Amino acid sequence: MTDLKHHVEGIESSGVTYPAGFKAAGVAAGISSVTGKRDVALVVNEGAQKNAAAVFTTNKFAAAPVLWSQQVITDGRVDAVLLNSGGANACTGAPGFQDTHASAEQVAEVLGVSAGDVLVCSTGLIGQRLPMDKLGAGISEAAALLGAGAASCQESAQAIMTTDTVHKLAGQELTAAGGTYRIGGMAKGAGMLAPGLATMLVVLTTDAALTSQQLDTALREAVRLSFNRADSDGCMSTNDTVALLASGESGVTPDPQDFTQALTAICQDLALQLIGDAEGASHDIHVRTLGAATEAEAEEVSRAVSRSNLFKTAIFGNDPNWGRILSEVGTTSAHFEPENVNVTINGVMVCRGGGIGEDRSLVDLTADRKVTVDIDLAAGEHQATIWTNDLTHDYVHENSAYSS
Amino acid sequence: MTDLKHHVEGIESSGVTYPAGFKAAGVAAGISSVTGKRDVALVVNEGAQKNAAAVFTTNKFAAAPVLWSQQVITDGRVDAVLLNSGGANACTGAPGFQDTHASAEQVAEVLGVSAGDVLVCSTGLIGQRLPMDKLGAGISEAAALLGAGAASCQESAQAIMTTDTVHKLAGQELTAAGGTYRIGGMAKGAGMLAPGLATMLVVLTTDAALTSQQLDTALREAVRLSFNRADSDGCMSTNDTVALLASGESGVTPDPQDFTQALTAICQDLALQLIGDAEGASHDIHVRTLGAATEAEAEEVSRAVSRSNLFKTAIFGNDPNWGRILSEVGTTSAHFEPENVNVTINGVMVCRGGGIGEDRSLVDLTADRKVTVDIDLAAGEHQATIWTNDLTHDYVHENSAYSS
Repeated sequence: MTDLKHHVEGIESSGVTYPAGFKAAGVAAGISSVTGKRDVALVVNEGAQKNAAAVFTTNKFAAAPVLWSQQVITDGRVDAVLLNSGGANACTGAPGFQDTHASAEQVAEVLGVSAGDVLVCSTGLIGQRLPMDKLGAGISEAAALLGAGAASCQESAQAIMTTDTVHKLAGQELTAAGGTYRIGGMAKGAGMLAPGLATMLVVLTTDAALTSQQLDTALREAVRLSFNRADSDGCMSTNDTVALLASGESGVTPDPQDFTQALTAICQDLALQLIGDAEGASHDIHVRTLGAATEAEAEEVSRAVSRSNLFKTAIFGNDPNWGRILSEVGTTSAHFEPENVNVTINGVMVCRGGGIGEDRSLVDLTADRKVTVDIDLAAGEHQATIWTNDLTHDYVHENSAYSS
Repeated sequence: MTDLKHHVEGIESSGVTYPAGFKAAGVAAGISSVTGKRDVALVVNEGAQKNAAAVFTTNKFAAAPVLWSQQVITDGRVDAVLLNSGGANACTGAPGFQDTHASAEQVAEVLGVSAGDVLVCSTGLIGQRLPMDKLGAGISEAAALLGAGAASCQESAQAIMTTDTVHKLAGQELTAAGGTYRIGGMAKGAGMLAPGLATMLVVLTTDAALTSQQLDTALREAVRLSFNRADSDGCMSTNDTVALLASGESGVTPDPQDFTQALTAICQDLALQLIGDAEGASHDIHVRTLGAATEAEAEEVSRAVSRSNLFKTAIFGNDPNWGRILSEVGTTSAHFEPENVNVTINGVMVCRGGGIGEDRSLVDLTADRKVTVDIDLAAGEHQATIWTNDLTHDYVHENSAYSS
């Protein structure tokens, strides 16, 4: 364990067991098609309180684990989260739901909790049943290996990776009136990053003492300003889940607004890690719309540009093709006068007053993975940023071969 | 001319001069970056009537020629259409509008008509002024070469090509109570094929005797069921224009419904030619939603699937990944019960009752460029088809290098 701390920068201050009261494990159960890859994770709240909140995909084809977890979260109590990669258990009908139920029952039995307090999250290919024998063995092994150290954080985050190339952790220690408390989290997601939620499976933990209602309010606001602003490829998953578990172990009850702010920062950190690892992407693009009449219009404009394949391929080609930005802005319902709109790419105002601005050759898109696009509608005082990626050969390659 | 008829199959029965009363020409004026490519076209109505209708992009950054042509069409009279490739004259401000006006004035002068009866259409890169000296020389040359033969049809259609690999023509002779009449047309468009209209510049002609109001009604219905159902990449152009000119030279006034039906068939023919030549595509995908509660819901579902990059890359990879279809259907506002939805790809029902259907390996996506996806919502009796393309390496390549 000591070795790992040296190898993995910052691992001691992030992940689901960074807050007090949590244990986790991630094991290789043979569900993933990649031999030896960890694919089953358990996160357990052993703290004094078991308060929790969760948000899910709004997709009408919500997967079996989502349908199950939506029931679990209704009473605001969660003892454990079971997660697997290697299969989404989506569009698998009643048998798929029974599989989820059975796996929750098994977790409940080995941990000595109620199945109705076990969240289940799955990710992978849609339309295939899970290998229940392998999942069952994985649950037993994970339960035996539960720990609170850096390796446990890392291995549980690895177990939920699919096409992710790196695991994603975040964490922060915060000071409140009564002392300090912590927030930690892990996330997965590299494709199907989009609207309702961006991909994805996310487990957040805290040792703050908050009610499930307070957690729910904080989580919805944090997700709105983080995962819902990440839109890699406009596709919404059937399995998106973001869960927040609170152990109360710090004994500190922070001001709800302060907690929301801190949770939002953690979620934004994780969301940007998702965008930074999106399938095949070579640029992370921050599309900010400012000067909008409303925040909703700013978001609509930024999202429309973020979903333009012509814009995204241009950025891949290091081409500051602002015409493709304006043509998308022009399809939105936002209020603006075309002749007042300015577009700035990496600090160069290539479009001024809806027409030709500075020389586009002044824009350097090769120096950095990050690209900043500012669209000023000059119609108000609101703004919103959507984080997206370019559209690359590697995206086409990865996604044309994913299920074969 | 006689030679050309032999070389180009069907050329005698299609194109803008197939109906009586029309002349056309297409010349190389040096506007295109491709040396020697035809880039200026003229279509002239020399018939007894000059009735016309047109529909345009709804993009708020509509290009200068669109703003001009919207004024021209208000009185329902059009004597000529000037078209150029090599530059969209979009986002060029007041100077760009003056350029369009000046070119219409020149056409008016050489043809002896009013500038207010000259439609102007441009296509190419956004955000660059047109080289007015070259355009002016092209107008003079085209006016001198106007003809009604097969070569004129072909050359004018070639002059509006951008990334198109082939020119697009259509035509049909129809029988009405008073005799026969004809409809002809040409189109361009290979990228930015999308919502409001699919790319594109289209000029349709007829020698039927119809009022501009009748033409307008027919054109809007035909476009709704053709170009508005083609959605190659979800991007809406600033320059889309579909114009319909009627010379009355046949002396036949068809039943308006019959005319609308014939015009719709011509437009669908051209729309499918656009999809068949879309940038970099290797599959033409017909996404049909049936069993919908309303036609609008059927269209919404088909369009959502047509815009999923994950679905489009799967088809490129010859992968009948129905999970990516369901996950898009699940994001729409359409009414349905998930457990009743069936999805059939090229005749194989891979998803039955919202779950696993026939073996996906039975679907062959390699045999034919055309792919048929049928989504049965089992929620009503309405249907709609959207025509789209797969997302390929060549699409990324072409669009990442377009303006550089």
